[in-house]
Amino acid sequence: MQSSITKLFNIKYPIVQGGMIWCSGYKLATAVSNAGGLGLIGSGSMYPDVLRRHIQKAKEQTQKPFGVNVPLIYPNIEEIIQIIIEEGVKIVFTSAGNPKIWTRHLQDHGIQVAHVIANSKLVSKCEEAGVDAIVAEGFEAGGHNGKEETTSLVLLQSLRHKSSVPIIAAGGFGSGEAILAAMQLGAAGVQMGSVFAAAQESSAHEAFKNEILKAVEGSTHLSLKQLIPVRLIKNTFFERIDQAEKRGADKDELSELLGRGRAKKGMFEGDTDEGELEIGQIAAIINEEESVHSIMKRLVREFNQALKKTKNWSELEE
Amino acid sequence: MQSSITKLFNIKYPIVQGGMIWCSGYKLATAVSNAGGLGLIGSGSMYPDVLRRHIQKAKEQTQKPFGVNVPLIYPNIEEIIQIIIEEGVKIVFTSAGNPKIWTRHLQDHGIQVAHVIANSKLVSKCEEAGVDAIVAEGFEAGGHNGKEETTSLVLLQSLRHKSSVPIIAAGGFGSGEAILAAMQLGAAGVQMGSVFAAAQESSAHEAFKNEILKAVEGSTHLSLKQLIPVRLIKNTFFERIDQAEKRGADKDELSELLGRGRAKKGMFEGDTDEGELEIGQIAAIINEEESVHSIMKRLVREFNQALKKTKNWSELEE
Repeated sequence: MQSSITKLFNIKYPIVQGGMIWCSGYKLATAVSNAGGLGLIGSGSMYPDVLRRHIQKAKEQTQKPFGVNVPLIYPNIEEIIQIIIEEGVKIVFTSAGNPKIWTRHLQDHGIQVAHVIANSKLVSKCEEAGVDAIVAEGFEAGGHNGKEETTSLVLLQSLRHKSSVPIIAAGGFGSGEAILAAMQLGAAGVQMGSVFAAAQESSAHEAFKNEILKAVEGSTHLSLKQLIPVRLIKNTFFERIDQAEKRGADKDELSELLGRGRAKKGMFEGDTDEGELEIGQIAAIINEEESVHSIMKRLVREFNQALKKTKNWSELEE
Repeated sequence: MQSSITKLFNIKYPIVQGGMIWCSGYKLATAVSNAGGLGLIGSGSMYPDVLRRHIQKAKEQTQKPFGVNVPLIYPNIEEIIQIIIEEGVKIVFTSAGNPKIWTRHLQDHGIQVAHVIANSKLVSKCEEAGVDAIVAEGFEAGGHNGKEETTSLVLLQSLRHKSSVPIIAAGGFGSGEAILAAMQLGAAGVQMGSVFAAAQESSAHEAFKNEILKAVEGSTHLSLKQLIPVRLIKNTFFERIDQAEKRGADKDELSELLGRGRAKKGMFEGDTDEGELEIGQIAAIINEEESVHSIMKRLVREFNQALKKTKNWSELEE
């Protein structure tokens, strides 16, 4: 396969499973890696010792490459980085912070680093930091998101010819056709979150998974834009925030309404009314809780069918 | 070429120029049609007699197929439809209303009808109305937009295998690679607005065109969501609306702030501070005022290059 990320990470398919809080522990990450993609453990919802156990379990359950996703703004970041190095993790995806701070340090310990951005302006910062790949995440993605609201389609066109390192497209990808489309637009592969959040191996609560399966177009919305924008399923909690925003609530009031532990409550404990349910727009096409094996088979089959179809097309007359 | 819309409309390229208020009169529409695409006159900003003159001029300036875009919610819709029929227009794109009301009537007069939707739920309504094609428009599009905020990438995946009539993808398209990507995702072609709004033949005011050329990621925002959502460039007028929304302004106050004639003021008269400047996110990659001829040549060249590249790719191992 022609993709620079399959070579970079030594994986079979140009498919990365997004590191997601409360969904992607070692079970999901190793299932994806064993199926030929790149699985990521999402450290954002883990205490340091929990992360260490997940990495250890992952090493037991797969011989294939896997990685850890690290939101750089988290308070115990130094301890997290130390654990990743000690446990011999080989790939780290960083987000929500400055790539210059940790990239070189991780690479000095033999770790490949990809960094998540939502604006093509940040490409040069990533290049200066020396990252091995860039994840370009669009407005349709679940969870935390950029302030510019640039969609994946526009972001990828904006990035054309701009980056010297491979681009991994993220946000809105749920089919093999879309993987091929991303590569058409210059990406070396895609990162998918929502599709894997609903997988059998995801540690998301069944009640949350059911909300993903039920979601249709318009079921999610980018919320809490005055704090950090986050794409959520519209539930009771969302509506309360939405009403507050519409009557002009300020940051402090919104922070208080948000409180603490909302994502855990919703995504891990299954309180689908009062929890935060972070998922992408692509949930609209996810209607079944499949195994990772079955998801990957489907994506590869759809990719190949789309590629075959394209090979029969003729050029436009110039 | 393999596209069902090139056959349907008898055009050379699977490229439709979106009908846009204050930008797409007969000059832009005929330039696009003469260059091998489908040009549309945007009737939304025209009094009935102005529309008639534009149609008559278009018939003088091209022998190729062209069409008229008609927002169905406009007050003088019956007169508009009557003029279109009298002047022998062959293609109508309808939006913002129920496709069941006018489709059959237009078709009875030998007119092909495409209808614009922003949600895959509306496909069956369009099919029942008997439309010849569907335009599926994503969140990133300029001007008026759907409430669900579904992006083009997600909307196209959501529409896969759902429509018995050809899909024209719209919203966020600015390159030949993106046209190929849309077709990969099942579309029969694309509709592009912003790219042509900035063309030499567009009747947009030069000051507005300059704002399009200067726009970067994040320069546009979907505004006035309590009225009809509309994507605008962030200018003085936008900021005033935004501040009002943030302090909890209701519909009445927003309507009053909006007033009348804002789009004309901004897009046609060039008041870039106090006018409404409707444009899509893809303005971020438009940096030059090109002729329609040059735009079409570039799009076709990029499409062919992307297609050639893809033909060299090998399938993924199943």
